[in-house]
Amino acid sequence: MSYTNSREKFEQVFRETVVPAIMEDVKKTGIDQKAYDWLEQAVLHNTIGGKYNRGMTVPDSLRILKCNTAEEIKDADLTEDEYKLSSILGWCTELLQAMFLVADDIMDASITRRGHPCWYRMEGVGMVAINDSFILGAVIFNVLKRFFRQESYYVDLLELFHETSFQTELGQLLDLITAPEDKVHLDNFNLNKYSFIVRYKTAYYSFYLPVALAMYQAGVATEQNLKEAMTVLIPLGEYFQVQDDFLDCFGVDIGKIGTDIQDNKCGWLINKALEIVGKDSEHRKILDENYGKKDAECEKKVKAVYNELKLEQIYHDYEKAKVEELEALIKQCSPLNQEVFNKFLSKIAYRKK
Amino acid sequence: MSYTNSREKFEQVFRETVVPAIMEDVKKTGIDQKAYDWLEQAVLHNTIGGKYNRGMTVPDSLRILKCNTAEEIKDADLTEDEYKLSSILGWCTELLQAMFLVADDIMDASITRRGHPCWYRMEGVGMVAINDSFILGAVIFNVLKRFFRQESYYVDLLELFHETSFQTELGQLLDLITAPEDKVHLDNFNLNKYSFIVRYKTAYYSFYLPVALAMYQAGVATEQNLKEAMTVLIPLGEYFQVQDDFLDCFGVDIGKIGTDIQDNKCGWLINKALEIVGKDSEHRKILDENYGKKDAECEKKVKAVYNELKLEQIYHDYEKAKVEELEALIKQCSPLNQEVFNKFLSKIAYRKK
Repeated sequence: MSYTNSREKFEQVFRETVVPAIMEDVKKTGIDQKAYDWLEQAVLHNTIGGKYNRGMTVPDSLRILKCNTAEEIKDADLTEDEYKLSSILGWCTELLQAMFLVADDIMDASITRRGHPCWYRMEGVGMVAINDSFILGAVIFNVLKRFFRQESYYVDLLELFHETSFQTELGQLLDLITAPEDKVHLDNFNLNKYSFIVRYKTAYYSFYLPVALAMYQAGVATEQNLKEAMTVLIPLGEYFQVQDDFLDCFGVDIGKIGTDIQDNKCGWLINKALEIVGKDSEHRKILDENYGKKDAECEKKVKAVYNELKLEQIYHDYEKAKVEELEALIKQCSPLNQEVFNKFLSKIAYRKK
Repeated sequence: MSYTNSREKFEQVFRETVVPAIMEDVKKTGIDQKAYDWLEQAVLHNTIGGKYNRGMTVPDSLRILKCNTAEEIKDADLTEDEYKLSSILGWCTELLQAMFLVADDIMDASITRRGHPCWYRMEGVGMVAINDSFILGAVIFNVLKRFFRQESYYVDLLELFHETSFQTELGQLLDLITAPEDKVHLDNFNLNKYSFIVRYKTAYYSFYLPVALAMYQAGVATEQNLKEAMTVLIPLGEYFQVQDDFLDCFGVDIGKIGTDIQDNKCGWLINKALEIVGKDSEHRKILDENYGKKDAECEKKVKAVYNELKLEQIYHDYEKAKVEELEALIKQCSPLNQEVFNKFLSKIAYRKK
């Protein structure tokens, strides 16, 4: 039988294995039924319904990394047990994301997430969501203890989750204090900060973490392999976020209306624009006066500057150079890592949505 | 030289060893100076200035637990290195508390903490405090990794902090949904829930955690010793919280004005009162109509019921029985554990503030 993976199959592991394990630990404490139900809802509401790209990367990568040569990959499959365990690790990355999203939505005063109200905006939840967010992070370690305690790489998994959480929180901190929604001051922005924010806030947990987890499970998490993953996947994650920022403004078919300009986001376009226009230009004045304003006219003026600066073309040039650079980086990696990284790159290179 | 411990000496370990270690890890990421300074402030504001009872318990307990017999304790001292390492563990418990307090103050909409504005109410902080709270929790694991990675009990420390966080968050969850400040409904309250809340929200991290940490460091964290610590320290922590609740209302010299009645707190007095008055009494009606109201007159009426029920005497009877029960429990423990537990008990038994 050849390998298949799907959202449904991946979700099944969550519903049949991960959630029951989490809830069994809660049950054991003897907590009151209302709190038990609340917690189950908090877990389900904030995990189910995503794209699971991060989580499903763990089994997908494990299938490649368990091979001895690139030739074996075509026919390689995972045993039921391998799929299950790697999906559990995948769900730990989804839980980590859930923890961050619940908290981020409060900090950003967001309204909806994945087409539903944000958790803190659900009837009767409110600020209790902060504690729920903690719990979403805490159950990761319950799950790891239950399913991985006997593995030689158990402590590596714990440290990886600790470190990734810390990195993500540092990225979030810099983002929050660089671009508070209510205080616009473009002198705060620059491409160096931007790069730090997207690498720390997004790339580590979304790109490096799932592959590193698969490397541990495959028994190939050597210093060299982890270094290759870091070297390729962090810039790749940064490129992904640059795409997101570009598509927020220039995307035509992304299924949502971009709000980065009105929201004073420290995105790639504004940082690139600031770099080009310099400190004392007419363009800079327009940006200063119109960026981060909740006003469609102001937004239009910022977009007009972007167009005059030909940011669309600059982005396409950036993208072409970035893809070539990543291809060159990947070519220096071990054959199996190349397969893993190329899968990522081919999924996102030149994406339009 | 005989053993001494003091807030100043304990704080010195934080300022000279723990904070520099935390900030070195932050520095290494290359994060922008403003974020670096912010983080240092978040760490200092939320840790310095407490009583350090929890943290200082770790070296105090280690000094006893490293002895072979109770006779040795009198002259036992800690080496400089033992004091430093146990204080680092103590500071990890203080950091855990800091993480919870920052988040709790937001959830409870508190105004001040330790005589200063709560962190989220500091100029320019606001909801960024949620992410800061995460960071306070995350740096615990950076500190443990740096100072304890080579120890055989490293993974035990990680698991202990994971489990204690989880327990505290479950206690906080039950507290939040049992006694929301804005929705008063005394049917929600009962002494069983109260017991769960105070054990999970307070006793595990304040009483069990520091002693368990000292047991690991002393190399005596056998199943039996940990079980004895749990058996004694969790009810002892519960008793401590009952005292707090009693003193909030009946304390004369505690240096603050109690607000539990107006704040709809699920405290010991109201739960005891509810148990006594039953479902359909005149007293119950008064409690229903006046508990949790931001009104001094309502508060007075609740206190009048407490007085008619002779809650003060009931508390004193409870206290006497509880102290005897704890003494009996302690007598069944190993001689060294008895010394540790008796120190705790003698500090809090019959306290008036």
